[in-house]
Parts: sequence; structure tokens; C-alpha cells
Amino acid sequence: MIGRLNHVAIAVSDIDAATAVYRDTLGGTVSDKVPQPDHGVTTVFVELPNTKIELLEPLGEGSPIQNFLDRNPTGGIHHLCYEVDDIIAARDHLKAEGARVLGNGDPKIGAHGKRVLFLHPKDFCGTLVELEEA
Amino acid sequence: MIGRLNHVAIAVSDIDAATAVYRDTLGGTVSDKVPQPDHGVTTVFVELPNTKIELLEPLGEGSPIQNFLDRNPTGGIHHLCYEVDDIIAARDHLKAEGARVLGNGDPKIGAHGKRVLFLHPKDFCGTLVELEEA
Repeated sequence: MIGRLNHVAIAVSDIDAATAVYRDTLGGTVSDKVPQPDHGVTTVFVELPNTKIELLEPLGEGSPIQNFLDRNPTGGIHHLCYEVDDIIAARDHLKAEGARVLGNGDPKIGAHGKRVLFLHPKDFCGTLVELEEA
Repeated sequence: MIGRLNHVAIAVSDIDAATAVYRDTLGGTVSDKVPQPDHGVTTVFVELPNTKIELLEPLGEGSPIQNFLDRNPTGGIHHLCYEVDDIIAARDHLKAEGARVLGNGDPKIGAHGKRVLFLHPKDFCGTLVELEEA
């Protein structure tokens, strides 16, 4: 079912500092900074040859990553995103296996304009998992 | 400097249960379980089309992931591993940038038989980073 690792998302409190770490210290290729008010985050992508790192900074009130940063002030890995071919089939399989899909179970449109779902970390080795329809 | 994302390592307390989650619930392709007594872990790889997930369970006394699991009993993402062409050049660049390399700064032979270094999470957005010479 799961296909490519689309991205690893890292939540940070200062995206400019994090971008400098990935660009200057680690020598990575970084994108421009993009505010995504509909998603409550500002994003920068680190483009690796085989996948990408998504740096996330909270944007506005009630950002979905604010609680995580309150618990992890230096930042940290927030979630992993796997691609699936058919997100409805994936969801139905996961539910049949007893795994918890977050929210009401209907896919939302994610920050890349694709349909996404998030899965409960306690059912996935302590890892918040995003599924994105490829 | 950084190249491919070689793997995402997830520490778990029960590697058989974690393997079942990745194989049966998420429908991934998983390897056999390999005890690595020299590294204090047992490993299973989830082979994705573009990278891999490395499931790690503590093995023996003093496993390097035991403290992490004591703090995160349900498991969690332990580190990210980026490939570099020349690990000595990478280390020297990182030190010149003021980043902390763990241990004495000399590469060790990692679980894949390649030279590796680990970098301090506080210098890398709260993420433990492994560099592996490709």
C-alpha cells in the first residue's frame, strides 16, 4: 500500500535559522519560504535527490504544529508522509486493520494540493503518519 | 553536501509488532529481522521505492536506543541518515560551521558497513542526524 516517502516534516520555531542550517551547515538545496495561511504554517523544502525535508514554522493563531513546538522548543521531526495510489482504499484498509485515522476520516486537501489523511501516532510506532494520494 | 536520505530510523520496543504494523497495516515490504550485537540493536528494513525505514529494537545491555525508548515508550523517530560523498570533508565543514559532531569526531563503521558520524540534535532543529559515506 505505502509507496514513496514523500517527505519528512520537521517543525521549527525559526524557519530562517532552520533554512540556514540546512543550506549552509548541511549544504542542502532549499526552496523559497512559502506562507500557507490555510494550513497554519510557513514551509521551506529541502530538496534531496530522492525525497524532501519539509521545514514547518507556525503561522497565525492555532497553528497545528504549535502544541508540538511547545513540547519540543528546539523543534523536531513532526511527521512522515507516505504516498498512496488511492487514499480512500488506503483509509478503508487501515480502518479494517483497526488503525485510527485522525479527524472525521475524510481526506483533506493538504499543503501540496493533494488529498491527505493523518494517522494516530500511537498506532504507528509513536510516529505521526500522513498519507498523500500520489 | 548532503545527498540522498538513506533512511529514517524508528526506535521501537517490540520489533515484531512494529514489523506487523508496517507490513500488514501499511502494506509495506519488510526485510527479515537482523540482530546486530556490535551495534546494540536488532533491525528490520521497510523498503520503500525511494528510501527505507529502519526499525530498531534494543539488543543487549546498554543499547544506544534504550534511553530514547525510556523517554518515548511507544517508540518514535530516532534519527535521519543523509548520505555524503566524503565523510571527512563533511565533518571538517560541519566543525568549521560550529556544529557539534558526537563522540571523538572520528567516523565509526555503521550498521551498513559504511563510515558514519552522528551530529548533535540541538544544532539540527532537534533532530539527531547521521551522516553515512555513500
